[in-house]
Amino acid sequence: EHWELNQHFDYRILLKLKEDLEKIKAKKGTALNCGKGVLEELKPLATLEDEGLTLKEIVERVEKDLLEFADDETVAINVASTEPTPEFDPEYHATLEGFERAIEEDRRDKVTASMLYAYVSLKNGIPFANFTPSVSSSIPALKELAERVGVPHAGNDGKTGETLVKTTLAPMFAYRNLKVLGWMGYNILGDLDGKVLAHEQNKRSKIVSKDKVVGKILGYYPYTITEINYFPSLQDNKTAFDFIHFQGFLGTKMKFYFIWDAIDAIVAAPLVLDIARFLLLAKKKGQKGVVKELAFFFKSPMDTDEYNTHRQFEILKKWFEALVSS
Amino acid sequence: EHWELNQHFDYRILLKLKEDLEKIKAKKGTALNCGKGVLEELKPLATLEDEGLTLKEIVERVEKDLLEFADDETVAINVASTEPTPEFDPEYHATLEGFERAIEEDRRDKVTASMLYAYVSLKNGIPFANFTPSVSSSIPALKELAERVGVPHAGNDGKTGETLVKTTLAPMFAYRNLKVLGWMGYNILGDLDGKVLAHEQNKRSKIVSKDKVVGKILGYYPYTITEINYFPSLQDNKTAFDFIHFQGFLGTKMKFYFIWDAIDAIVAAPLVLDIARFLLLAKKKGQKGVVKELAFFFKSPMDTDEYNTHRQFEILKKWFEALVSS
Amino acid sequence: EHWELNQHFDYRILLKLKEDLEKIKAKKGTALNCGKGVLEELKPLATLEDEGLTLKEIVERVEKDLLEFADDETVAINVASTEPTPEFDPEYHATLEGFERAIEEDRRDKVTASMLYAYVSLKNGIPFANFTPSVSSSIPALKELAERVGVPHAGNDGKTGETLVKTTLAPMFAYRNLKVLGWMGYNILGDLDGKVLAHEQNKRSKIVSKDKVVGKILGYYPYTITEINYFPSLQDNKTAFDFIHFQGFLGTKMKFYFIWDAIDAIVAAPLVLDIARFLLLAKKKGQKGVVKELAFFFKSPMDTDEYNTHRQFEILKKWFEALVSS
Amino acid sequence: EHWELNQHFDYRILLKLKEDLEKIKAKKGTALNCGKGVLEELKPLATLEDEGLTLKEIVERVEKDLLEFADDETVAINVASTEPTPEFDPEYHATLEGFERAIEEDRRDKVTASMLYAYVSLKNGIPFANFTPSVSSSIPALKELAERVGVPHAGNDGKTGETLVKTTLAPMFAYRNLKVLGWMGYNILGDLDGKVLAHEQNKRSKIVSKDKVVGKILGYYPYTITEINYFPSLQDNKTAFDFIHFQGFLGTKMKFYFIWDAIDAIVAAPLVLDIARFLLLAKKKGQKGVVKELAFFFKSPMDTDEYNTHRQFEILKKWFEALVSS
Repeated sequence: EHWELNQHFDYRILLKLKEDLEKIKAKKGTALNCGKGVLEELKPLATLEDEGLTLKEIVERVEKDLLEFADDETVAINVASTEPTPEFDPEYHATLEGFERAIEEDRRDKVTASMLYAYVSLKNGIPFANFTPSVSSSIPALKELAERVGVPHAGNDGKTGETLVKTTLAPMFAYRNLKVLGWMGYNILGDLDGKVLAHEQNKRSKIVSKDKVVGKILGYYPYTITEINYFPSLQDNKTAFDFIHFQGFLGTKMKFYFIWDAIDAIVAAPLVLDIARFLLLAKKKGQKGVVKELAFFFKSPMDTDEYNTHRQFEILKKWFEALVSS
Repeated sequence: EHWELNQHFDYRILLKLKEDLEKIKAKKGTALNCGKGVLEELKPLATLEDEGLTLKEIVERVEKDLLEFADDETVAINVASTEPTPEFDPEYHATLEGFERAIEEDRRDKVTASMLYAYVSLKNGIPFANFTPSVSSSIPALKELAERVGVPHAGNDGKTGETLVKTTLAPMFAYRNLKVLGWMGYNILGDLDGKVLAHEQNKRSKIVSKDKVVGKILGYYPYTITEINYFPSLQDNKTAFDFIHFQGFLGTKMKFYFIWDAIDAIVAAPLVLDIARFLLLAKKKGQKGVVKELAFFFKSPMDTDEYNTHRQFEILKKWFEALVSS
Repeated sequence: EHWELNQHFDYRILLKLKEDLEKIKAKKGTALNCGKGVLEELKPLATLEDEGLTLKEIVERVEKDLLEFADDETVAINVASTEPTPEFDPEYHATLEGFERAIEEDRRDKVTASMLYAYVSLKNGIPFANFTPSVSSSIPALKELAERVGVPHAGNDGKTGETLVKTTLAPMFAYRNLKVLGWMGYNILGDLDGKVLAHEQNKRSKIVSKDKVVGKILGYYPYTITEINYFPSLQDNKTAFDFIHFQGFLGTKMKFYFIWDAIDAIVAAPLVLDIARFLLLAKKKGQKGVVKELAFFFKSPMDTDEYNTHRQFEILKKWFEALVSS
Repeated sequence: EHWELNQHFDYRILLKLKEDLEKIKAKKGTALNCGKGVLEELKPLATLEDEGLTLKEIVERVEKDLLEFADDETVAINVASTEPTPEFDPEYHATLEGFERAIEEDRRDKVTASMLYAYVSLKNGIPFANFTPSVSSSIPALKELAERVGVPHAGNDGKTGETLVKTTLAPMFAYRNLKVLGWMGYNILGDLDGKVLAHEQNKRSKIVSKDKVVGKILGYYPYTITEINYFPSLQDNKTAFDFIHFQGFLGTKMKFYFIWDAIDAIVAAPLVLDIARFLLLAKKKGQKGVVKELAFFFKSPMDTDEYNTHRQFEILKKWFEALVSS
């Protein structure tokens, strides 16, 4: 029992939900190209590809399972562990036609699980969000699909903890013309995510996503260190240590430190709910393609260069107000 | 030599400025109602009131000294130590007529040094800014004066360190609906300011100024602790320790800590220069009265309830762009 | 239910102990001269003195209640809230005769609850420890009593958190001849203890106890700040922020920060158990009077100037080994 | 000029020493098997091996240079950058005969610069200390040499910063039976040492030296993370961030954080001086071989399992007092 280990919320909440939780049945899915991190840390992991299915058959199974469950209010959100980033292949990733050909030709080396789930959702008019740094719906092929079908999607990588603080604080240094000389961010976490990220291949995608935000906001790229390490006794607790070295008037160097001591799942869960609600609203209002106004929720927002949390919030508010009154 | 103790910037910068610095001659001024902190820590302190001058004579002397020096480009900025907050007296503080009557009647119990300097500046068309939590130009009487003379002014209390970080971070908790349960801010500093603030009377004004910003931004007033203590070995170094206790999804409590390790004078100096430039521009463009768009620079901005650093920056930018192109 | 608020240990432990816990019945006691902090924060507080009893009658009632309960293995430990420190009065505090005269004469202004409990325990041959900064058994009168009756006692003020770290770290600076320029310690806590200590009178005793240890270890008294503040949302959580400014070779200043984020009751409870065991052993081995070798457990150990945690541990070990093999 | 960049002490100290410093002339030496870190970061680096000298010729040159300079009071201390750890080869490292055969046979693959300097010093009766994690005089061959010649030596790896704190604090958790669940130590530094340690090969030796101390003191090996990263803007400043997760009564988990913000050279220099003085005294008093009582100064002390800073200090004091009075 996962709760036993953490007890980060009241067990009586769990008791009340027991019946409902027990009714949820997970179906067998795919973990195609999810990297060593996922395959080793989650085993035994029974997947559709282990059954010997072709890509096409996998898509059909996932589609069948999804449609049995889905209704008009359904939104799909990828909260699986981080996949390694596959190399972009114009032949199969650039166009919807190419992507569907990859499925036809059973090119498993070109397709990851997060792409498949995005594909099945969007194809069936189900709004989709990618809460992870995996590639998923961000390839041109799937953006094309969303436009064609007329369904909204958003991503990538939920901005829950250290990066949220980074993108809130970094603007301050820019506004005040305090030059950031270096920014160090050390993250330790004890959950399954931490275990998966301990694998170099999977970690890489995450670090790239966390690392670039400071430079995007400042307009120049200071020296940065971004580390993620597994720390088992923390369990669902995630702690980040950041150190910012900055330079002010007359070249004087000064220091800023922060410690973020939070529970990743607890800060992530309400974002997932909010994203679902916003995407559903967008769908109802007829929006399609990337909803870049949801950048507020993501570390690597699609189709925008706005990383400043404050501006993202203003954009979200304006979008929401316009949408509601439309 | 003050630099000897701190050495927080290169001594060669000082050598280059030596000649210019030596030309600056300070005149004897007033420290009326500046509180025990100022009187005890800065002694021997020779003031105009010690010479037995009346309020009217003090005003005349300060005016004479100022006009000898000032030209069209002069801006006056109050960077003196924090005064205790006097009780508001409608008779003498509410109208310009009342304030001038206080001077005529030599009501020294009603007037503080920071009011006098603001009065003399504004009366002579010199833009004025109050970089301290002292009352200064924020009483209705002096606001009226600024409007009448047609000169811009701004204040109060330069937002240089911990409060800058507070007003940058607090919005994040609001945006994400993370409830702040408590916010503790401990400040230690070793300069003269620290010595003066060690006096209860003077400290009070400062704490009020630092303390309210979090509630203003969040829309509710969490439990707060704000302490300022003198720590001699730090000299010009100012360090703030903040702890934020917050509550997220399912009532889970989480923690955030930060340490700001900076040099107060170094972060303040460029703000003083910027405020001077902006006020001069405002004057040239014909603005008068409180320039509330300069809220970005102040802990307790006059005539606005906008404490969010990010919004303040947007407001400043818009104001500046409109002004320049006007 | 206190546990509800904190949940800092597994509720199933509590379930197992439920029956035993319910059997424990507290008797009405005394809160004589416990200060405003105790009287206001714990009310409604029914005490023996409220019943109009004289000192002598209070002593008799406490004694009766204690003897009903006690056996040969009983040890009494004061874990009540901190009392204000009464002024030492040679007439009533210096000798056992004087102290007993105070009781006879019903001099309630001279006697505190912690003295009364110590008196009753020691008089009846029950080893006593004072886990608080209250005066208790440390007055000469009660030390005399312990010697006469032949019973061991120990105190004062359990060294549980920040002071434990202080007395562990401070020796390092001494060994390496790094001069401590200043040591700041800020404590925040949310339990009843915090509430009581928010009262100036009660806080004073605690701060004196925490503050002097650094100087005792270093051999000189650096600038120190010791603050304790109530922070309700922390509940049983106690957090300390320490900053140490130190100077090394060639006068270079350097910095050390630590954050102690612990649960006071959880770090205190095993000490209380250990002290009880050690005192019982001491009694069985015929020791009487202050057991200064238990200094390891206390912030203000009686009859010793050894504040270095490491030396205290070595002394405890030697004492224990000698005692066991005696 | 190195001082220009750091200015961590008063430039007037430097002016006073200018003449003396200019008289010191460094001779060309060896960097044999010092690893990529040293070779790449210090280039252009002119070494004796670049001149095409054999091992034997290198030894002769170093010996000649040393003897020209040395007198009766000379002590040699290795403060060079960390070498990668060579594999132990019994044939050449286990006995003095083997080591000298390696020199004869010009087996450059078996010998590192730090061994050569130790060899030359000890052979000539010059006390030697290894202030680095390099192997140096710790191989049996050189220990044998020291015993034979009758000269004292000590090592390894100066305990200057984070490890000093670790070995001061870890005993506290042991004394109080608080179980350390995990200990994370992140080090960032901006000097040449940091640059060299950014090279994986060189870093490895250092991490092993830093990492094991906690387990040695606790008696069990908790989960540890030890990272060292280069952070250029810090220059000579070295900052360590440590997080200790520990478990107390009833299984409750608690947290401790510390930040060490110091100047490595400044905390190291006086240790180097003290080691030199102690070794000289040891020599004068006729001690030979490893002086394990100097463990206080080292991260990986030779021939002892005592890592507790406090015990090491007691041992040093006793040794010194006995030696002086012998």
